[in-house]
Amino acid sequence: MNRQDLKKYLNIYQNGLLEDILPFWIKHAIDWEDGGFNFCLDRDGSIIDTDKGVWQTGRFTWMILTLYNEVEKREDWLKIGKHGIDFLEKHCYDEKGKMYFTLDKKGNPLRMRRYVYSESFAAIAYAAYYKATGIERYREKAREAFDSFCRYNNTAGLIPSKYTENRKMRSMGVPMIGIVSAQELRHNLDDDTFTSQISTWIREISQYFMNHQYQAVMETVGPEGELIDHFDGRTLNPGHALEGAWFIMKEAEYRNKDPELIKLGSTMLDWMWEIGWDKQYGGIFYFRDVKGLPVQEYWHDMKFWWPHNEAVIATLLAHQLTGDEKYADWHEKVQQWSFSHFPDPEFGEWYGYLHRDGRISVPLKGNIWKGPFHVPRMYYMAWKICESILKTQTQ
Amino acid sequence: MNRQDLKKYLNIYQNGLLEDILPFWIKHAIDWEDGGFNFCLDRDGSIIDTDKGVWQTGRFTWMILTLYNEVEKREDWLKIGKHGIDFLEKHCYDEKGKMYFTLDKKGNPLRMRRYVYSESFAAIAYAAYYKATGIERYREKAREAFDSFCRYNNTAGLIPSKYTENRKMRSMGVPMIGIVSAQELRHNLDDDTFTSQISTWIREISQYFMNHQYQAVMETVGPEGELIDHFDGRTLNPGHALEGAWFIMKEAEYRNKDPELIKLGSTMLDWMWEIGWDKQYGGIFYFRDVKGLPVQEYWHDMKFWWPHNEAVIATLLAHQLTGDEKYADWHEKVQQWSFSHFPDPEFGEWYGYLHRDGRISVPLKGNIWKGPFHVPRMYYMAWKICESILKTQTQ
Repeated sequence: MNRQDLKKYLNIYQNGLLEDILPFWIKHAIDWEDGGFNFCLDRDGSIIDTDKGVWQTGRFTWMILTLYNEVEKREDWLKIGKHGIDFLEKHCYDEKGKMYFTLDKKGNPLRMRRYVYSESFAAIAYAAYYKATGIERYREKAREAFDSFCRYNNTAGLIPSKYTENRKMRSMGVPMIGIVSAQELRHNLDDDTFTSQISTWIREISQYFMNHQYQAVMETVGPEGELIDHFDGRTLNPGHALEGAWFIMKEAEYRNKDPELIKLGSTMLDWMWEIGWDKQYGGIFYFRDVKGLPVQEYWHDMKFWWPHNEAVIATLLAHQLTGDEKYADWHEKVQQWSFSHFPDPEFGEWYGYLHRDGRISVPLKGNIWKGPFHVPRMYYMAWKICESILKTQTQ
Repeated sequence: MNRQDLKKYLNIYQNGLLEDILPFWIKHAIDWEDGGFNFCLDRDGSIIDTDKGVWQTGRFTWMILTLYNEVEKREDWLKIGKHGIDFLEKHCYDEKGKMYFTLDKKGNPLRMRRYVYSESFAAIAYAAYYKATGIERYREKAREAFDSFCRYNNTAGLIPSKYTENRKMRSMGVPMIGIVSAQELRHNLDDDTFTSQISTWIREISQYFMNHQYQAVMETVGPEGELIDHFDGRTLNPGHALEGAWFIMKEAEYRNKDPELIKLGSTMLDWMWEIGWDKQYGGIFYFRDVKGLPVQEYWHDMKFWWPHNEAVIATLLAHQLTGDEKYADWHEKVQQWSFSHFPDPEFGEWYGYLHRDGRISVPLKGNIWKGPFHVPRMYYMAWKICESILKTQTQ
């Protein structure tokens, strides 16, 4: 990519984050009355549901504290970060220490789910808060939440299985979220012991989820990586795989551009771009069947915000690490499609749910699944990658 | 409706059932090798997933035995019915007697869900088999399964709640499925004691789920019928409400055209036709928000097969019971839209999943949710209603 384009993109991402995305959420989402955040927002930022998701609480807290740590020591960002941390600590745990999935406006628990992703997102929030404040207690809280995530996922039977023993399966969600959470903890707790755990999860992905026959990153496989030839086992999630691809490329970058990890991450990107990019309308499909059969999930051909966020990061990072212009082209493609369909020029932020051809399905800006995470993380990451490429070129 | 139109529709429904819908499933879905049925079929009837759903097993078994009992004593139908009954008895119960949700091809259990709808569909299958054969054991099996459905739903705590006590709610699914199951048992076991239980469930719907302020049939409400002003509580399911409407109108018919029940059922239809009918593209929306706010479920504006099946029955039955030509018009509207979008003229049966404008989303004919139930039940019911109106006119 030439310097002019790099500067153009750097500006888009930096300004978009600081002047559009972040102000939207800071203005509308903070519940100064009852604590925590209101993320279920209509197009104009008005609240359409006062329930509070724990995933998004941890994620936004991490995001804003990361901006505090890495971009600028703004007191208002730290204050919002502490506001999120307080809510997590005060309301989000049951009596056994497992974290809830949703709470009501006052912080009363509504739903506990069997999964432990609330813990992984809380862990990165605590770690960022430790980095911001140096308060030792949050180093411990971060470790505790991360250990809980690992323990539940590594101890057979601790999470009640959805399926019986007759359909044994592994899902890519655990190693993927494990990798990125451990990367955050390693960085913010300044502790390199997380690296070996990251290596284990990367090996798990490489060994079990890379289907070379179909050139596809699987979401769910048998215990030894076998294709589970049923609806669920065949269902691919391109956005998820592209997210995993850049987690691994980021690890490659951390390890002095480890060629094996660059190869793995860029192969994941190559395969899932081919499968996930909609050659007719543009944009990234939500689900595809590895054999091209009909998918059971109804929204398979819709265009959601977050796969596009992950595709922007993955293509840009692949370009940075390999210098391959193919990735710069793909970045341009997905950037163009995303920015001409998702952003709301009137009220700011992105729509989340588009039909295949890019028409808006619902105009809301947030719900229990969509909050200030994938969108601002993309703007932040892409800004920093552009900056880094420009810096390297100058040297 | 004039006699010519009635005869036209009667032919469409009768011939469609006997020459298109039923032959499709009989040809493709019966697993003579391992028992039970393969309902996960691609457009041409080829199997795309060998897993077996318990809901659909009970439902199809009920359907084909109902045709045996009510239409013609065909030995092949009885044989298929027994084939379904055998699979239910042999494979579908856990050691405590609770029924599974899915099994693999060989009948090994895959998933147990907290809900007890497998039981309600097994109950009507057993009752139809008792009617067909007179074997006393199936009268008992039907009662057992029905009692299990009632016990789980009426005993607080027996089904682990998805939400905590902080968000108490009632769902319309239980009284609705309760009513239609009890109607089937009453008919096939020739036992009028089910009537009082049906009355209780109808009162529950009338008292708690009819929101007169919004003129809407709610899906989920607070313990006293309060509007739960969150995504889930505001989400309406027009097809589901239309299905409930005709269950209640059928009860009105059974009770010598009880005017109060006709009023309740036709009001449910009036309200939810107004909310559910897509005035722009035609067809019935999947979900709507009672306040017109964005819906959280992604497929809210898609057109699924079964709400159209339920709308055809509800409008036709309302026309029969009230004589109101408005319902004949609505029937024509939904019949026309459905028959010009859902049927597959090449391979038979209906597509299940269309986009809002009627374009096909996936060409499959069956999966864990779609099987030979709503479609053939509509053809059968609509045929019989047309027949009944013609008969009355002649008298």
